Amino acid sequence: MDRQQIIQSVSVQMPERRWIHTQGVMSTAIELAERYGENPERAELAAIIHDVAKYWPIADQAAYIKQNSLDERVLHYNKELWHAEVGASVAKEQYGVHDIEICNAIRYHTSGRANMSLLEKIVWLADYIEPNRDFPGVDVARELAGVSLDRAILFGLDQTIVFLIEKGKVVYPVTLEARNSIVQQLNMK
Amino acid sequence: MDRQQIIQSVSVQMPERRWIHTQGVMSTAIELAERYGENPERAELAAIIHDVAKYWPIADQAAYIKQNSLDERVLHYNKELWHAEVGASVAKEQYGVHDIEICNAIRYHTSGRANMSLLEKIVWLADYIEPNRDFPGVDVARELAGVSLDRAILFGLDQTIVFLIEKGKVVYPVTLEARNSIVQQLNMK
Repeated sequence: MDRQQIIQSVSVQMPERRWIHTQGVMSTAIELAERYGENPERAELAAIIHDVAKYWPIADQAAYIKQNSLDERVLHYNKELWHAEVGASVAKEQYGVHDIEICNAIRYHTSGRANMSLLEKIVWLADYIEPNRDFPGVDVARELAGVSLDRAILFGLDQTIVFLIEKGKVVYPVTLEARNSIVQQLNMK
Repeated sequence: MDRQQIIQSVSVQMPERRWIHTQGVMSTAIELAERYGENPERAELAAIIHDVAKYWPIADQAAYIKQNSLDERVLHYNKELWHAEVGASVAKEQYGVHDIEICNAIRYHTSGRANMSLLEKIVWLADYIEPNRDFPGVDVARELAGVSLDRAILFGLDQTIVFLIEKGKVVYPVTLEARNSIVQQLNMK
């Protein structure tokens, strides 16, 4: 499928406000790609598709993960993580995206993971700071994004983990690994 | 070795203030054991030995872990975790403690782990709240300890993780697993 066909297919699978969010992620991902030396078209394509499965019925997301032998670990954690696993597979199977790095940027756009690629980092951060986002700390994250990709992502991952802890929710271990990995990368610089 | 011989051997391996701390852990572990239905003698024995290696030179701790084929994962994380691995092995090899649950209570007294036994929980919490401890939140933890072992431990693990995050330090994944495990146990009640 070409870009326009994918946009058409993705946008009809979500409410308008989520498509507006996706457009924010697309433009932010392009900006970050240009700033940090990644291919803007790859960043935009990952952004277009990243939330394709977000509004699928949750039972359909779980069934898709099981039927397609995706990583079932997420099923034991927050449901907000599931659509990312599904989205990465949809990108490949339905939209013909064979660039594994684009699929991985979709797959880890919510959880993050240890040793994220530049493209994964850009999509993760674009999703966190796109212009329609409005939560305590988002301005700090946007400022940091102008200075250091790693510092901005560490801020965001730390906020996410502390938020879950304060709410008494389980924290996905892969998200902690993502955060530890960035701490180690920053300490090495 | 009998109890008195172990006390003698452990106490000479640390400064006086740490032995005072250990005595606090001993008495608190006995109290918690009586309150929550564990054998007080097992709890006290784990408490006596728990910090035996705390003041070993750090290189000796690392060497002991490698030479005795202990879990080398801790070597990639905070040095404060190492003495617990060593202590569990010293309990068995030098003091003849063959009760694996006592050794595990020593081993996980700093990190915690998923699905902790009652004895492990008691020693972890006794170490956290013994009367000589003085840090923000310790009074809350002591109050919770009178109500619910799990709630007190969750409070302590959460404090520990948030403290490390705020300091920009790596968080040992096993500690997050310990915390997630208790959240799940509490949600099931």
